[in-house]
Amino acid sequence: MSDRLTRVGPTTRIRVRELSGSTVRDRRDDLATEEPLEIRLAALDGTRKTVAITMRTPGHDFELATGFLHGEGLVRPGGIAAIAYCTDEDLPPEARYNTVTVRLHGPIPDLPTLDRHFLTSSACGVCGSASLDDLHDRCAPLPRGTLQLTPEILYGLPDALRAGQGVFGKTGGLHAAGLFRPDGTLVALREDVGRHNAVDKLVGWASLGERLPLAEHVLMVSGRASYEIMQKALVAGVPAVCAVSAPSSLAVDLAREFGMTLVGFLRGQRCNVYSGQERISVE
Amino acid sequence: MSDRLTRVGPTTRIRVRELSGSTVRDRRDDLATEEPLEIRLAALDGTRKTVAITMRTPGHDFELATGFLHGEGLVRPGGIAAIAYCTDEDLPPEARYNTVTVRLHGPIPDLPTLDRHFLTSSACGVCGSASLDDLHDRCAPLPRGTLQLTPEILYGLPDALRAGQGVFGKTGGLHAAGLFRPDGTLVALREDVGRHNAVDKLVGWASLGERLPLAEHVLMVSGRASYEIMQKALVAGVPAVCAVSAPSSLAVDLAREFGMTLVGFLRGQRCNVYSGQERISVE
Repeated sequence: MSDRLTRVGPTTRIRVRELSGSTVRDRRDDLATEEPLEIRLAALDGTRKTVAITMRTPGHDFELATGFLHGEGLVRPGGIAAIAYCTDEDLPPEARYNTVTVRLHGPIPDLPTLDRHFLTSSACGVCGSASLDDLHDRCAPLPRGTLQLTPEILYGLPDALRAGQGVFGKTGGLHAAGLFRPDGTLVALREDVGRHNAVDKLVGWASLGERLPLAEHVLMVSGRASYEIMQKALVAGVPAVCAVSAPSSLAVDLAREFGMTLVGFLRGQRCNVYSGQERISVE
Repeated sequence: MSDRLTRVGPTTRIRVRELSGSTVRDRRDDLATEEPLEIRLAALDGTRKTVAITMRTPGHDFELATGFLHGEGLVRPGGIAAIAYCTDEDLPPEARYNTVTVRLHGPIPDLPTLDRHFLTSSACGVCGSASLDDLHDRCAPLPRGTLQLTPEILYGLPDALRAGQGVFGKTGGLHAAGLFRPDGTLVALREDVGRHNAVDKLVGWASLGERLPLAEHVLMVSGRASYEIMQKALVAGVPAVCAVSAPSSLAVDLAREFGMTLVGFLRGQRCNVYSGQERISVE
């Protein structure tokens, strides 16, 4: 899987197809890197415990671990003896910099219900590649299918999404996720303060109505496209995801590896196609 | 605590102070409601297990529970026997509609590392009020302090935040959190694909530099102000939080109850003050 984008730095260079009106241009672009970080606590007596695995942009990782632990009330200023990356030689390089161990002067506090695991911590350490490998155990790549979109259909989706939102949602108070037919018709729309919740509501609507898998549909979200959003779309069988804002590096990795179309920065008469260009007809 | 805003509906009515240039107007406004939802699995033999507690906007809760479980691979279409709110009579009404039990035809699957608990599930059920009560056990309200801001200082913060971001962050690819002095000077800035991570990095920076508590500072975030963001600011001792976009109902509850200033929709020469108006000088 050498063509995966996952990197250690905060941004990842990528090739993207830019559509602007009826113009098509292939160019290089930078994406925010998204990789999992495992935060471990360790006591002086050698006890260790994984406290959280969170998707993040690499950089300032010791600060992230410290700030997270502080916010959860698990460390106090002055309570930290040392902070280090996991340097096990048997870990692949990209996983080494995705695990931070915070060594405390005192014992590890009780963590009754603080687990915040989005992902399984695999034997070879957490990294975006391992997350994608885990997903292969649950999901097959989506078939090419017959879904075909034009730039004009894409350009119409943001307005249709906004038109479907309540007056309040239009003010930016709520994230929206909309499900569209290939002709740009809105099928269902859900809103929430949490972007991932809006998508969960939409997939739940489809599941309860026995409409899964959602082949031949397009999912449009009002914000960014993260790994989590793409994973939810994949499991629901949605072959194309459009976002008003940017995708992350791992969202693009997932889309490319599982045969999904991913469109970002869809605003006005332009957008970037990051994956699955074969489903978008250009002259 | 009868003046808490927490409600069952998707939006919550509130009084807000709107600043526009040098004009001040008090008016009513609507916020997106943010309340925790506890998702439980139940088997026909009576076994139960809490799978997740997530902050969400009430509405379409059965869909949210179904979609979440589907995305995590915990239920398959047709595997659900029934979905219901918790109707225990001894629960306060607001908590009853914050717990959804999904009853399966089969047994409860293994949930090794799927816990996604942001919050402790208290004896009286989850609700925003219980979340705030838990927080009182860990944090005292912030003192009034000497921090004093003017509308002009506030209006300058978004540009200062953007100027501090890298070229890439300015494109919308990354969330930013900035720490400012009362005169509007940027002290530190962190970016991440996750809004809460950007704040964690900032608080971690302060903690590692022995700068906590961050009294007399202003935190500015590029997106919305949620409960989680406000909680992180409170624990770090930050008395004022500004957001480019909207706050949630529970963010306003938290700010009002813990003596924090909360400013939202801070764009151009205008903003809304939701809490702690005494720290903002108006003519």
